[in-house]
Amino acid sequence: MKPTGLITLTTDFGMQDGNVGVMKGVIYGINPQAKIVDLSHDIEPQNITRAAFVLSRHYLYFPAGTIHLVVVDPGVGSERRALIVQTAEAFFVAPDNGVLTYVVHDARRATEDLHIIDISNPRFWLHRISHVFHGRDIFAPVAAHLSLGVAISAFGEEVDDLVTFPLPQVERVEGKLRGQVAHIDRFGNLLTNIYRRDLLSWREIKVRVRNREIAGLSRTYADGQEGEVIAYIDSAEELAVAVINGSARDLLRAQVGDEVEVIGQ
Amino acid sequence: MKPTGLITLTTDFGMQDGNVGVMKGVIYGINPQAKIVDLSHDIEPQNITRAAFVLSRHYLYFPAGTIHLVVVDPGVGSERRALIVQTAEAFFVAPDNGVLTYVVHDARRATEDLHIIDISNPRFWLHRISHVFHGRDIFAPVAAHLSLGVAISAFGEEVDDLVTFPLPQVERVEGKLRGQVAHIDRFGNLLTNIYRRDLLSWREIKVRVRNREIAGLSRTYADGQEGEVIAYIDSAEELAVAVINGSARDLLRAQVGDEVEVIGQ
Amino acid sequence: MKPTGLITLTTDFGMQDGNVGVMKGVIYGINPQAKIVDLSHDIEPQNITRAAFVLSRHYLYFPAGTIHLVVVDPGVGSERRALIVQTAEAFFVAPDNGVLTYVVHDARRATEDLHIIDISNPRFWLHRISHVFHGRDIFAPVAAHLSLGVAISAFGEEVDDLVTFPLPQVERVEGKLRGQVAHIDRFGNLLTNIYRRDLLSWREIKVRVRNREIAGLSRTYADGQEGEVIAYIDSAEELAVAVINGSARDLLRAQVGDEVEVIGQ
Repeated sequence: MKPTGLITLTTDFGMQDGNVGVMKGVIYGINPQAKIVDLSHDIEPQNITRAAFVLSRHYLYFPAGTIHLVVVDPGVGSERRALIVQTAEAFFVAPDNGVLTYVVHDARRATEDLHIIDISNPRFWLHRISHVFHGRDIFAPVAAHLSLGVAISAFGEEVDDLVTFPLPQVERVEGKLRGQVAHIDRFGNLLTNIYRRDLLSWREIKVRVRNREIAGLSRTYADGQEGEVIAYIDSAEELAVAVINGSARDLLRAQVGDEVEVIGQ
Repeated sequence: MKPTGLITLTTDFGMQDGNVGVMKGVIYGINPQAKIVDLSHDIEPQNITRAAFVLSRHYLYFPAGTIHLVVVDPGVGSERRALIVQTAEAFFVAPDNGVLTYVVHDARRATEDLHIIDISNPRFWLHRISHVFHGRDIFAPVAAHLSLGVAISAFGEEVDDLVTFPLPQVERVEGKLRGQVAHIDRFGNLLTNIYRRDLLSWREIKVRVRNREIAGLSRTYADGQEGEVIAYIDSAEELAVAVINGSARDLLRAQVGDEVEVIGQ
Repeated sequence: MKPTGLITLTTDFGMQDGNVGVMKGVIYGINPQAKIVDLSHDIEPQNITRAAFVLSRHYLYFPAGTIHLVVVDPGVGSERRALIVQTAEAFFVAPDNGVLTYVVHDARRATEDLHIIDISNPRFWLHRISHVFHGRDIFAPVAAHLSLGVAISAFGEEVDDLVTFPLPQVERVEGKLRGQVAHIDRFGNLLTNIYRRDLLSWREIKVRVRNREIAGLSRTYADGQEGEVIAYIDSAEELAVAVINGSARDLLRAQVGDEVEVIGQ
């Protein structure tokens, strides 16, 4: 697989300070033909698990060879490594802090080859390196050179492993699954870490969250009444809970981490 | 008219969840030469009339052949149709829920030919279709194939009509116009559904909104004093109300839908 | 220096109303090959000094010949001039209201040639000009034509000077520097108008802000403990104050303009 010129950006920078824009300036300075897509810049500051989850929902929809640049980097300037990870589908450029946990988990489940490079060759960085903004000074230029076809081996040594965090566990006891709210989206929908594949053995299910019990899965929002609480399968195959034309976060006072229980038959 | 490679996006997705980015990934996977412009992703969730109004203010400034993709879609997954609409200037790809009301109204006033296609040919969709994210799975790939020059007839049958909502009425009684606040912009300016053309017969006007009476039209913000409430013609020819270096929304406690009265002489 | 096709946008428009998108539509209509980068659209409404500061932190990281378009323009429609400024590195298109103060200051300190054009030739504007949206009707088309290689002299007369505001002063008294908080970023970090170069003569420093005294400079965020208040040099060489994994704005109740004192030895 060769890199395309397509680079996605996921950061916790927000858009107000210009830090995302300046990364794009650095990329275009190196590869004027690059195409850059913002995935999200509104990751909660320093929230590595949130960034990992958002990336995991979307990266498989990009063309093979896309470079995904992720800069949620509380350890910037410390000894934490900077990595390139190559899977069967894509390249990832990110600090070694767990932000690629789902990506690596997916690749290992599919028993794909995984190449991990410890970025160490300063030839592909900006000449002056700030201690607090490696997104601009290291990650953006590395992604840009990578998009021009520089071999991953040129950026540093191949290594065996990288930091991952334990995936939030889904407990399975007889007739029950216990997971968590993993993300709350803009509509206030609760996306869980329970997936469609976890539910296949049951004919009927009930979903419990925040003392609310929901019987069965709705196919789509239009199947419920205004204000009704429904459970459904969201677009990345997660079990999710919504309020029709409303916000499940607000109505149920839900937060990321809240327990979600599925009772199946 | 042929489609250019230019595609605009208007959604209620916000930018935090990556749902806009993934639509761009799908588009670039089909047409790597596309150019994509974000029009707005901060439409209030499910607010079809707001999206319709925002689109109406801007689409005529894009090059002929631009494709405008609008995904404010509370009925996703239901029987609501998905449409391509071709006017004399542009293409629109959107759910059939009224979001193109102003566009169709403009085209009919200009007695332009209008082609409406009921999107039904799955050949141009992603292979697996989620019930809750047709933006990614149907609308984005259709827009991308359209931008490559696929004829609109390839996407489905031509149909006669589409859903529109009644445009908010401007009542005209002798010497008076009665309309509404249609949109409040980032500066807190109140944009109304009364247009410059509605005022041409009068030499002098007064504007009343929220118990405030404003005499005459200012040409621009710089014509008033700091804190002054002015009426003026905004950039899409709407009658509008602003507070100089302040917010009319906050000062007048105004909301979308508030009555606006013009008394003319 | 020739313009590249790269154009950055800095405005106070926000993204919700479509006003940024429509400027891009105008640019692509004139130069379909342009590349457009959003620097920031979340400048506080009408805050010229804030826009000037954000631009100043980033523009040197863009390729030579980049065109920086800045539209924070409370005087739109008045007699304020519209300018093109060419420095040794870049082009700037902006209202003549001080928004290029840092850029001009940098150029003059480096004794660079500076060319200032009073934009007056309507040939490069849209045909119909709104009195309240020159971003769309004048600045965007001028930047687009400039990006196609039109000589700056074609847009209007060269002039000698432009509006600048007095840079916030850093007072230096024996053993002390007194400056201000110039910007607060998304993380709540306080960026000051005191720069690394101002501190070079001292071996040790203390930083005082909001009754807090911080001894010494940390190299990066990872050098402190969670919740600790640190001083450090930020990515554009500014002295800055942060709370590790927290917000200095919230913890110190800091605002732009707050006094910052450095005591050196």
